[in-house]
Amino acid sequence: MTITIKDVAKVANVAPSTVSRVIANSPRISERTKERVREAMKELDYHPNFNARSLANKNTKTIGLVMPNSANKTFQNPFFPEVIRGISSKAHQLDYGLYLSTGQTEEEIYEEVQDMVQGRRVDGIILLYSKMNDKVMNYLYKEKFPFSVIGRPYDPNMKDVTYVNNDNFKAAKNVTEYLLLLGHRQIAFVGGNLDTVVTIDHMEGYNQALLNADISPRSDYVVFHEELQEGGQEAVIDLMSLSERPTALIVADDIMTFGVMRMLNEMEVKVPDDISIISFNNVMISELSSPPMTTVDINIFSLGFEAANCLIDRIIHPLTDAKKVIIPHKMIKRQTCKRFSPKVTT
Amino acid sequence: MTITIKDVAKVANVAPSTVSRVIANSPRISERTKERVREAMKELDYHPNFNARSLANKNTKTIGLVMPNSANKTFQNPFFPEVIRGISSKAHQLDYGLYLSTGQTEEEIYEEVQDMVQGRRVDGIILLYSKMNDKVMNYLYKEKFPFSVIGRPYDPNMKDVTYVNNDNFKAAKNVTEYLLLLGHRQIAFVGGNLDTVVTIDHMEGYNQALLNADISPRSDYVVFHEELQEGGQEAVIDLMSLSERPTALIVADDIMTFGVMRMLNEMEVKVPDDISIISFNNVMISELSSPPMTTVDINIFSLGFEAANCLIDRIIHPLTDAKKVIIPHKMIKRQTCKRFSPKVTT
Repeated sequence: MTITIKDVAKVANVAPSTVSRVIANSPRISERTKERVREAMKELDYHPNFNARSLANKNTKTIGLVMPNSANKTFQNPFFPEVIRGISSKAHQLDYGLYLSTGQTEEEIYEEVQDMVQGRRVDGIILLYSKMNDKVMNYLYKEKFPFSVIGRPYDPNMKDVTYVNNDNFKAAKNVTEYLLLLGHRQIAFVGGNLDTVVTIDHMEGYNQALLNADISPRSDYVVFHEELQEGGQEAVIDLMSLSERPTALIVADDIMTFGVMRMLNEMEVKVPDDISIISFNNVMISELSSPPMTTVDINIFSLGFEAANCLIDRIIHPLTDAKKVIIPHKMIKRQTCKRFSPKVTT
Repeated sequence: MTITIKDVAKVANVAPSTVSRVIANSPRISERTKERVREAMKELDYHPNFNARSLANKNTKTIGLVMPNSANKTFQNPFFPEVIRGISSKAHQLDYGLYLSTGQTEEEIYEEVQDMVQGRRVDGIILLYSKMNDKVMNYLYKEKFPFSVIGRPYDPNMKDVTYVNNDNFKAAKNVTEYLLLLGHRQIAFVGGNLDTVVTIDHMEGYNQALLNADISPRSDYVVFHEELQEGGQEAVIDLMSLSERPTALIVADDIMTFGVMRMLNEMEVKVPDDISIISFNNVMISELSSPPMTTVDINIFSLGFEAANCLIDRIIHPLTDAKKVIIPHKMIKRQTCKRFSPKVTT
């Protein structure tokens, strides 16, 4: 037998309409009555119909998560479960549920997002990536729908956007400076997809550090590949085919670095004796490479946690200014970087 | 300006109630009228309110995903993103959305599931794990709520449960037989959490293969740890402290195997020269160990894809029998197994 609002009303000794108002958390009902009704609900194990409640409250207590469009492959990057774990942790605290995009192509995801927004399926959206000229971000911005971004909008005119990011420019500048201090001058940069904002920020930080040290950036020392092991392998082929091989690599992503190290190992190029490597992200498995990789911990969990926090804040207080949060990064020194020692060429 | 049902009705030249019926896909409306109304919706870029539609249709077109209770740490196992990718792919095909559990403890998840079911937040649920005496599974079974399980119910009396599983008994038996054929007699088994059904099935397959070869299973050769790199490291300490060390290990999970190999490397025990290792799952990064691990591909994507397929089938046809699908496994031979060669003890 299904428990209804009428049963709850009877036990709490109020009118059924009062029960409805308690479910909608109406300010017109006293706290004392609310408590009595909630106790009756608990006693009868009554759970309000989610959709009726959402219609009445005009909210869904649900956050939509939008993955990058190449979800197919990059979904496997351990960055995503960890960022979702952070989001999940904050959402649970504040009693929000998570709704996941499932589209495989950019177009499918765009349609899904329109449905989420116009169908009021969610109260707000978190974009788990940030790229240039993103149709989805432009749409959410135009619709003034609450959203937060992991990363940052590329367009400087998009001022009213809530985002949570690392200082990726500074992080890349720092690691380049570290390699310079170790005596390296031939430092290459292996970036991720060129349309993501983090790639641009990394590259600019890397260039700035080189310029500060009076080294002209070389275009053949900068390559871009997919943030997967295969991308790393391709990057090594690009760079090790050069007549002047780099002595140090900055790699945008730990999973790419696994691919880089695998390929160097096949070529019998020793890390860190022949080449130093520094990576980004510090995903769970990054310490499992051999040797364990030096990488930048970007605090993925906090990126997710804060993105959920800021979004929910914006949902509840739509008139406040957009928040811009920078999560600190930290270099984790393991065993893939070494002082440069010139070799006698044979 | 918000587009309403009335606007759509005007353009399609029908009554507003007809538009509502088209949204609810009522059989009382002709296909021709449906098409006309849908065209008008598209023209006006009208998206029906999701909650109103759900109330009217008495369905949500949403699937709830329930993670294991120790989500905190095992969520990072690449098994989960890959199984969700499989679910996502099928769900998208059939126009279902995904709703993710966010609870961190068993009790929190149990409450969430009650809310999903009684609040009609989802049409069905997929359990991404299977363990003994699972409160959530018992609840769903009792409520006769549509659900499917990745794995299988442990209780043989739970007959009417839809599940998608590998033949884990056979897979473990096969890998044990393979190691026996390579001449190993001292084969240890590193299992996952002892309350999960897959661990029981693995252990029974391992025992059966040993018994068939007239080897008595030794209790000190069987250990259980968390399916994380730390668990693998602890397992190595257990097993390498024995006076008679095993010459081969069967490890329940690739991430554990990374931990196992890391610890063996520290102890300067060589894989596969001193000890052979065979693992389970074949997660994306499993080939990145050094040397690359031999493992059993359990086809994680298909487990998810089929679990979504069977669940949606059950949602649409509630009176059909529960489906039990077995996804084939396949051993992927890489470089961690070697013929046993007795060593001269010094």
